[in-house]
Amino acid sequence: MWEAVDIKQHRRSQKGVALWFTGISGSGKTTVALEVEKRLREEGHYVQHLDGDVVRQHLTRDLGFSRKDRDENIRRISFVAALLTQNDIITLCCFISPYRAARQAARELIGEFVEIYVNAPLDVCEKRDVKGLYAQARAGKIPEFTGISDPYEPPENPEIELKTDTECVNESVQTVIQYLKVKGYIP
Amino acid sequence: MWEAVDIKQHRRSQKGVALWFTGISGSGKTTVALEVEKRLREEGHYVQHLDGDVVRQHLTRDLGFSRKDRDENIRRISFVAALLTQNDIITLCCFISPYRAARQAARELIGEFVEIYVNAPLDVCEKRDVKGLYAQARAGKIPEFTGISDPYEPPENPEIELKTDTECVNESVQTVIQYLKVKGYIP
Repeated sequence: MWEAVDIKQHRRSQKGVALWFTGISGSGKTTVALEVEKRLREEGHYVQHLDGDVVRQHLTRDLGFSRKDRDENIRRISFVAALLTQNDIITLCCFISPYRAARQAARELIGEFVEIYVNAPLDVCEKRDVKGLYAQARAGKIPEFTGISDPYEPPENPEIELKTDTECVNESVQTVIQYLKVKGYIP
Repeated sequence: MWEAVDIKQHRRSQKGVALWFTGISGSGKTTVALEVEKRLREEGHYVQHLDGDVVRQHLTRDLGFSRKDRDENIRRISFVAALLTQNDIITLCCFISPYRAARQAARELIGEFVEIYVNAPLDVCEKRDVKGLYAQARAGKIPEFTGISDPYEPPENPEIELKTDTECVNESVQTVIQYLKVKGYIP
């Protein structure tokens, strides 16, 4: 059980990839990603979930929400996601990442990159308002809020699009898992 | 060959750990680490090498060499090293990391942490001066240069100490590999 061959078999049983969940606040990025993470862990896979709050606390706490700062935020995250992906970790990245150019740069740096557009209409997300952020944004308490006072540039050719206003979480999760299987990232 | 059990066997064949090489410029951190990396790769292990130049380019290019900036540099690196280590990657970190408190914080965050004091006297390192940095520092062209105009706080209880002025690279590498085996990080 302590032979190096175990590792070589492992290299075949999982291939590193970044699952890049993009979408406006409340679209369901984290909800879907957490469930995908859970399913993959149950199968014994190595999975790393990178989420906005944790990353901004540890890696980018010097940054705000201007375009320049958002770009630098995504740039640092991309570097970390690339390291994990290179080491055959399935890396779940949940970031609004509103700018097309920044997502494109992430794709180029990471290589094995699956763009997942978590798509729900603004009014649906605003009605959900899980964190109460839309109310604050409408009241002018949060400047540069994506969808309200800051732009969101939808993906033009995402590998996966999840319509979370019309499909249930389980359907979205199945779509992602199925994609990983078809593309050979997992058996 | 495509069964999840492969991964579970892999989990047993390699345990994540951060090998934290600390020492002044020219002490031999990178020389030893690159050779350790090579040996581990030959055995089929997952290894990630984090080095000063690459990290400062991608993760911390906003930072300088003041104590505050050095601390933030190490803090961000520690977060990344923790992610990799948690995923059972052997992570080689080569950073002068002159301050004891910053290394201690890294240890606490990462958990599986092996402090490797790459120890060569200043005059030996200055004579080597591979990158020509000491000459520049002596000429006053580099402010806050560790060992010259900025302090280096040696580890008090490093897991490993390598005396690179009296031992050859191969001996240093053997010491590190042997430690990994004895502690069960690799078979």
